[in-house]
Amino acid sequence: MKIATIIGSTRRGGNTEELAQMVTADIPTTIIKLSELTLHPFTDLRHTKEGFPSALDDYDQIVQAFMENDLLIFATPLYWYGMSSLMKTMFDRLSQALRDEHYGPQLKARMPSVEAIVLVVGGDQPKLKALPLIQQFHFAFDFLQMKPLSSYIIGEANQPGEIKQDYLALQQAQALNKALKNKV
Amino acid sequence: MKIATIIGSTRRGGNTEELAQMVTADIPTTIIKLSELTLHPFTDLRHTKEGFPSALDDYDQIVQAFMENDLLIFATPLYWYGMSSLMKTMFDRLSQALRDEHYGPQLKARMPSVEAIVLVVGGDQPKLKALPLIQQFHFAFDFLQMKPLSSYIIGEANQPGEIKQDYLALQQAQALNKALKNKV
Amino acid sequence: MKIATIIGSTRRGGNTEELAQMVTADIPTTIIKLSELTLHPFTDLRHTKEGFPSALDDYDQIVQAFMENDLLIFATPLYWYGMSSLMKTMFDRLSQALRDEHYGPQLKARMPSVEAIVLVVGGDQPKLKALPLIQQFHFAFDFLQMKPLSSYIIGEANQPGEIKQDYLALQQAQALNKALKNKV
Amino acid sequence: MKIATIIGSTRRGGNTEELAQMVTADIPTTIIKLSELTLHPFTDLRHTKEGFPSALDDYDQIVQAFMENDLLIFATPLYWYGMSSLMKTMFDRLSQALRDEHYGPQLKARMPSVEAIVLVVGGDQPKLKALPLIQQFHFAFDFLQMKPLSSYIIGEANQPGEIKQDYLALQQAQALNKALKNKV
Repeated sequence: MKIATIIGSTRRGGNTEELAQMVTADIPTTIIKLSELTLHPFTDLRHTKEGFPSALDDYDQIVQAFMENDLLIFATPLYWYGMSSLMKTMFDRLSQALRDEHYGPQLKARMPSVEAIVLVVGGDQPKLKALPLIQQFHFAFDFLQMKPLSSYIIGEANQPGEIKQDYLALQQAQALNKALKNKV
Repeated sequence: MKIATIIGSTRRGGNTEELAQMVTADIPTTIIKLSELTLHPFTDLRHTKEGFPSALDDYDQIVQAFMENDLLIFATPLYWYGMSSLMKTMFDRLSQALRDEHYGPQLKARMPSVEAIVLVVGGDQPKLKALPLIQQFHFAFDFLQMKPLSSYIIGEANQPGEIKQDYLALQQAQALNKALKNKV
Repeated sequence: MKIATIIGSTRRGGNTEELAQMVTADIPTTIIKLSELTLHPFTDLRHTKEGFPSALDDYDQIVQAFMENDLLIFATPLYWYGMSSLMKTMFDRLSQALRDEHYGPQLKARMPSVEAIVLVVGGDQPKLKALPLIQQFHFAFDFLQMKPLSSYIIGEANQPGEIKQDYLALQQAQALNKALKNKV
Repeated sequence: MKIATIIGSTRRGGNTEELAQMVTADIPTTIIKLSELTLHPFTDLRHTKEGFPSALDDYDQIVQAFMENDLLIFATPLYWYGMSSLMKTMFDRLSQALRDEHYGPQLKARMPSVEAIVLVVGGDQPKLKALPLIQQFHFAFDFLQMKPLSSYIIGEANQPGEIKQDYLALQQAQALNKALKNKV
């Protein structure tokens, strides 16, 4: 099983990244930090004649991640009770990618083989207030006809490094790490 | 009561904008189309010494909207079951604005006087699948200590102009328009 | 269009009932007050050989409501952020009714012709905290293959009669009443 | 730490009970099966002069569970995307208990010392469709001023015994069991 981890944080080495590292400890994974890619904003051209232009930025790396991996780990800080705008841009641009005349059809065809895991870290009662975000991921994966979201971890942390004090999130990260090791 | 409408669509004249126009028909409102502003992506610098740099783009218009209006109407298409990345960037950047040494304190102090209305238009069972987004707006307005979200409309539309066929959304838009007229 | 209103309140003449009356003002509707029926608790016998026994209480009136009406209005107070236990018992018993050898098949076949409206009245930030309940109704109607839930009203009230002060809920009730009148 | 497990199933030895047993394996816990108690339906008498009468059924055992334990494990099958009506009746009756002149004040005072864990088992995409129920539990525990819900497990199972095939739920149950053992 090939795994890629897509990090939606804008800060390096933050709690979200740390949680992702625990989940993938000793497991080969491609790490994609969205903050290091150039991703143009999404403009909805679905209903124009010309459709979407070819992307001339780093979005190909996202498409590639879907094409070449069996499991995608989406790790995002909880900003305003949703995913980071960085990761949201990545998702919005997916609408464009799916309509791309070159790789759109293959990308669509690939989706049912891809599984996803979601990791979220927030500071304001995330175990409750991140649940709408988890629902949105569910709906999105359903729409994409990906495998159903089987697993997610919601961690609580405010200050840098604080995720280590969320005992339950650590437990879940370890259990998930063990489960992934059995699968890889 | 001063009203501003913040449009998160990337397409002009789309269903979301149309729904917003119905809600504000014959009511003076400042319209802010996020697609016409330059908004840099958000980078989380909360935990750095330097903090956030002054924004050198059009974000001031957003700050101004909060400072000068009593009611903000947030109108967004439902993309991937969340707000558009354009609007999400606006919210994420708010974290920066609230910490700005110049206008941050005033902006915070202003929040309890501001009311919000949310308009969402989506194509895939939005009356169910936009509910997590509505919850997120609730949580966000609570966090900002704004007045509680009293009113929202979820419209259903796929093709351009289709919102006109969502009879119930039209009814709600008219009722809201009438209520706003009584208040203005 | 034939309409029945199912009231899940345990108090007579409460806010929930009042909201339901506004929605159905001047419209013929059968009113079923669950508090006036004898409904035995639900016991899950799906996996036993004998299956469910015939109900010997008033549940037939619920089955009849589904069989004979085109629109069901479910009106419930928000208790502990869910429907009243009275109404929950009614739903749980539906699992039994759908498996009844006499009327189960007809009841199932009837579902796609039935539309539903949901009315909820709560006291603790219901416009936010009743949204999970609305989602549950959506899922339930989907499961039953009923028409999708197109319309719901969440009212806020604590003391008896207080619903009259929820201006927005009243507006929505009027709009819905008007819409129903056009359909009847 | 004293632990009680409240089982909302109506079937004995079902998947929900099995999941609860895994979570509390080798840990002393009082087991309360709601199906074995007599619990009268809830009638809302909050706004009457007389208030609630003293309960003459087994509700005292529920009150006792709150008074004498530090952790309550609420285990319920997912019926119609909510808790079982049996458990819902137990919650609705809590409104009455909290107003009881004899033990109401002590019960209220006790709440901030009580922690809760939620276990849910469902058959129709529960990992998504039980999330509204998890939110409701959160809101309820918040309202009661109990400790925030830190942990829950959503298992998937239809046929008796099927919970054993939900590998992830088992992993979570084991992790939780381990965490509880450290605390007891």
